[in-house]
Amino acid sequence: MPQTIITLTTDFGQADSYVAQMKGVMLGINPVLQLVDISHAVPPQNRARAASVLNEAVDAFPPGSIHVVVVDPGVGTDRRLLGVEAGGQRFVAPDNGVLSTVARRLGIERAVELTEQKYWRQPVSETFHGRDVMAPVAAHWSLEIDLAQFGQVLEGDLIGLPTREPTRHDGGIVGEIVWSDAFGNLITNIDRSLIPEDTRAKLTVQAGSCRIHGISRCYGEQTQGALLALLGSHGRLEIAVNGGSASDHLGLKIGDEVRVRIGTEIS
Amino acid sequence: MPQTIITLTTDFGQADSYVAQMKGVMLGINPVLQLVDISHAVPPQNRARAASVLNEAVDAFPPGSIHVVVVDPGVGTDRRLLGVEAGGQRFVAPDNGVLSTVARRLGIERAVELTEQKYWRQPVSETFHGRDVMAPVAAHWSLEIDLAQFGQVLEGDLIGLPTREPTRHDGGIVGEIVWSDAFGNLITNIDRSLIPEDTRAKLTVQAGSCRIHGISRCYGEQTQGALLALLGSHGRLEIAVNGGSASDHLGLKIGDEVRVRIGTEIS
Amino acid sequence: MPQTIITLTTDFGQADSYVAQMKGVMLGINPVLQLVDISHAVPPQNRARAASVLNEAVDAFPPGSIHVVVVDPGVGTDRRLLGVEAGGQRFVAPDNGVLSTVARRLGIERAVELTEQKYWRQPVSETFHGRDVMAPVAAHWSLEIDLAQFGQVLEGDLIGLPTREPTRHDGGIVGEIVWSDAFGNLITNIDRSLIPEDTRAKLTVQAGSCRIHGISRCYGEQTQGALLALLGSHGRLEIAVNGGSASDHLGLKIGDEVRVRIGTEIS
Repeated sequence: MPQTIITLTTDFGQADSYVAQMKGVMLGINPVLQLVDISHAVPPQNRARAASVLNEAVDAFPPGSIHVVVVDPGVGTDRRLLGVEAGGQRFVAPDNGVLSTVARRLGIERAVELTEQKYWRQPVSETFHGRDVMAPVAAHWSLEIDLAQFGQVLEGDLIGLPTREPTRHDGGIVGEIVWSDAFGNLITNIDRSLIPEDTRAKLTVQAGSCRIHGISRCYGEQTQGALLALLGSHGRLEIAVNGGSASDHLGLKIGDEVRVRIGTEIS
Repeated sequence: MPQTIITLTTDFGQADSYVAQMKGVMLGINPVLQLVDISHAVPPQNRARAASVLNEAVDAFPPGSIHVVVVDPGVGTDRRLLGVEAGGQRFVAPDNGVLSTVARRLGIERAVELTEQKYWRQPVSETFHGRDVMAPVAAHWSLEIDLAQFGQVLEGDLIGLPTREPTRHDGGIVGEIVWSDAFGNLITNIDRSLIPEDTRAKLTVQAGSCRIHGISRCYGEQTQGALLALLGSHGRLEIAVNGGSASDHLGLKIGDEVRVRIGTEIS
Repeated sequence: MPQTIITLTTDFGQADSYVAQMKGVMLGINPVLQLVDISHAVPPQNRARAASVLNEAVDAFPPGSIHVVVVDPGVGTDRRLLGVEAGGQRFVAPDNGVLSTVARRLGIERAVELTEQKYWRQPVSETFHGRDVMAPVAAHWSLEIDLAQFGQVLEGDLIGLPTREPTRHDGGIVGEIVWSDAFGNLITNIDRSLIPEDTRAKLTVQAGSCRIHGISRCYGEQTQGALLALLGSHGRLEIAVNGGSASDHLGLKIGDEVRVRIGTEIS
């Protein structure tokens, strides 16, 4: 049996046995899987955060890895469950937007609606399709069964999420904070491609009542406790405090505005 | 060596190295184990919660899986440590009630008191038998050593836990909340077998000051924000809010009463 | 490929995808690794806690295990990254003190500064050397590439941490609390070797306003709720409450003083 990687991204937390139940079902089908937790701390039913944490993790995994996302407020209703191939990676998730970011970025090669019940765990619970449909399909897929066996080719597009792209305004960029990580680093929706290399020394970033001049290369480039802006490992503009928490320092939260401008004046 | 699954259920949390120490000891004995965490968030020394989280997870695992439970307030005293075969699954735990629920449900095939010290890690700490006795015994057991090698056949019954079974009262059922999961779903001790299928549309569930009419099939069957009752993936009556937290909504906690009655009158 | 163990100790938490990204990179290089989390709850950038949790976990792992520590406030600056062999174990970490405790205890056999970029993930991010340098080096090392291939032999000593050793005072020992675990057990910096076996019945331990007479063998030796002192699985003097939390009971925190004295008088 192949030692395929299956990753898990859920809003289950780690106190309950839900994650373990999915793993038990998968290992009953393919005992040599490599199971990797991406995050089980997606806020309950927050599809945008699931889409984002998946998208930032995927490129670190080797081709053929299978990524299972169970953030599924519609469980038991007629929302579709999908198997998707994109960018050499494989995905199993509800069609509710959680795959939209990564699918748009990598480009979908094939997508199938999971309808073939012979690969499901029986009986199928009405409230836990992660364990009874998605986990067994992912494990069977790791056994080199072709995606087409799991159902019918998807009709139409994947469901998207409302996206909040940065906008241009008076020659500057207006974005927003999309995540605060465990260090209190504030990650924005402003991609590094929007900030040309030759402008980085001359930029001003405004976050809350604070202005930051220039883009740092790394946290330690500034003195301890200094507020700084950098292009983080997510590939996006990030606001940080060297040795501290920008989230605590600025009192900002997800959705708050961040402005970038060449020069020191911000309107 | 066989790629056996060993699961872990503890009250150790994940900040300290206790869980990793058990894993290191086990992998030193059998390097190809599949290690799966069920939960390390059992409240400290809460044997009833350990018994319950183990019982709800076990059926998802393939036969021959070994389940290690280290919720062990009596470590270092003369409480017995057990190896148990039940329902095709294998268990290693203290004889303090943590196995009582699953053993009663699956039926014990064989039980042995772990007394054979040659399978223990030496020296044995007085305070961490999870690492020094239970982990090495589980790992050796995965190598197809017969259970009888680890000690002597158990004399007498397993120690039980005080159980709180639902009672019948005036034609209705009186149960209680036994867990609030990460979503704020309130899980009761009322088994689905107590609620016949033909009565489900006519039932009234009373929880705190709220009454819920009828049993839903899944969360999404009701409108967003609606309070509902369903038979969850635990196989028990569960009170939930579609897209929200029943625990926050009702202000109820573990031990609070839940009543089920046919018809709309609850005394 | 060899089924080597790689452990991970970080301050990343488990909500973000940083840990998973490291695992994806490692499994892309060696798909049969055994990955074990020691702790991802090291307080942000707390090198002393990283050094301590690593040191207490290492002895449970079989020889040849590779321990990766990513608590790296200096990422992107010119701090060195190391590969170290000590006591039959292998380590990959920044040279910032996180290895100092375990290296001093086990004795360094070989140490190399990681400079050979052909084993790194490209491009190397300025802010995430855990994923781009340490993870791929550890995974390549598991493939039996010799340590010398990863860079040049280390010049000079490892960087240490300011240590707080217990002192002797009027025939007693003055130490301090260095950790409060998930149970609220207070672990001190007083090693069991400082407390000779024949004195254990006659000792008095003072912690905050409370005095404890004698050293218990295990938690359950005292009555439920009793405050006690014991030599815990860390090999150090520990203050605990049987069935409760010493941290809550005494209101003490990391850094607070603990005194040990033969006899009942404490000055």
